[in-house]
Amino acid sequence: MNTYATATAADVKALRALKTRAERQSQGRYLAEGEHLCGEAIREAQAISLIVQSGKETQYAQYLQSGLPVQVLSAKAFDMISDTRTPQGIAALCHLPDHVTATALGPRIVALNGVQDPGNVGTILRTMDAAGFTGLLLDTSSADPFSPKALRATMGAIFRLPVCVCDILSDQLRALSGYDIIAGSLDGAPFYQRQPSGERVCLLIGSEGAGLSPQVTAMATQRVRLPMPGRAESLNAAIAASIMMYDFVRVWGQP
Amino acid sequence: MNTYATATAADVKALRALKTRAERQSQGRYLAEGEHLCGEAIREAQAISLIVQSGKETQYAQYLQSGLPVQVLSAKAFDMISDTRTPQGIAALCHLPDHVTATALGPRIVALNGVQDPGNVGTILRTMDAAGFTGLLLDTSSADPFSPKALRATMGAIFRLPVCVCDILSDQLRALSGYDIIAGSLDGAPFYQRQPSGERVCLLIGSEGAGLSPQVTAMATQRVRLPMPGRAESLNAAIAASIMMYDFVRVWGQP
Repeated sequence: MNTYATATAADVKALRALKTRAERQSQGRYLAEGEHLCGEAIREAQAISLIVQSGKETQYAQYLQSGLPVQVLSAKAFDMISDTRTPQGIAALCHLPDHVTATALGPRIVALNGVQDPGNVGTILRTMDAAGFTGLLLDTSSADPFSPKALRATMGAIFRLPVCVCDILSDQLRALSGYDIIAGSLDGAPFYQRQPSGERVCLLIGSEGAGLSPQVTAMATQRVRLPMPGRAESLNAAIAASIMMYDFVRVWGQP
Repeated sequence: MNTYATATAADVKALRALKTRAERQSQGRYLAEGEHLCGEAIREAQAISLIVQSGKETQYAQYLQSGLPVQVLSAKAFDMISDTRTPQGIAALCHLPDHVTATALGPRIVALNGVQDPGNVGTILRTMDAAGFTGLLLDTSSADPFSPKALRATMGAIFRLPVCVCDILSDQLRALSGYDIIAGSLDGAPFYQRQPSGERVCLLIGSEGAGLSPQVTAMATQRVRLPMPGRAESLNAAIAASIMMYDFVRVWGQP
């Protein structure tokens, strides 16, 4: 039996506040909105409760019957907590995961320095999850992976991969011993002629505008640059990260 | 000397209408908004006139002095023609390029079947321009590359690469003789063990949901699948296209 409850005005206010990073951290929770994300949150045992728009209980019965507490919101209240123009009327409330350090991210890390577009951060997590990378390290000058836009782009990868958010990326990188730390940099060596890497790899990606900071670049074991034989002078950050990740997939071969 | 003119209500209405594909085709024009795109449109000789928000003439003097006719719009009118929440106050009006057929797209083509997200279509053009691909072929079930969101994501590649928009993609593919037509498909052979390609390549990318249509798949000379050793079951369409393009860059080597 589920616990169905009509949300109070205070509940709605607290849920609506989760649109900002500060409030997500203060409440220790985030909201995964939409049918696909909600289903993934339940499947990966990350949802602590569900929120449904009044009148859509039957449509989303398969999720609501998962045994989690359910809050029912009016259409107007759901609009207020939603990040989209045409809300689907279903969301999962999740605990923010406990803080992990960079050394707990496994052997295949992507590290982001000032990647500010939430869609790019989310898309990078999605590609990591496909490519078999094991953890995301990023600084607070990058977009928050738990923001609504980033979450959507992860397509659920956020529930499967550990994420370490840190203030000073170079400090976390310093703790990664035995890793080949490969910086994507416009003045790097040709990527496809790079030095072979060992088992442990950390791919460093900077912002499209500013690139990597000098402190972060100083932690790299090699600097590489994707060739651009065409006329464009740069690649989208998520595209560059994904191209590099997949060349490691090619080199490592399939399991 | 430039021709400065204050836009009439009819001018504003015509510019505002350019947000839809039907109206862009009817007028034979599109609007490239924002400082970066506007600068690229001028540099690539694609702009036919410029539109500036009243009061920003000094800020954008370097563009307005390019010799093109200039229309001045009130802040309110600029808001109406703009696709963004906080308009930069500068745009370039461009002619839609003449229709080209697939055979005019050069030796390295990307073909899209039902890729509906305009950001993905624009990002694919941007990567093509970096990777040295020569032309984009897409059907009308894909997002219009001349829509405001797609244009932004191209970062100017739209001004440098020929684009063929067609109703029936398989008909255009049939005309591509001597091309290795490589379909990205979930039931394809492992991508990194694909058959070697000749000089002429056409990469076929479908929608994330539905994939390629049977008619389009039937035109492929090989079907390939990117390995996914992790847990995600799919990649973003622009990411998949870019990973495949860049593996051709790797194989071809740098010029």
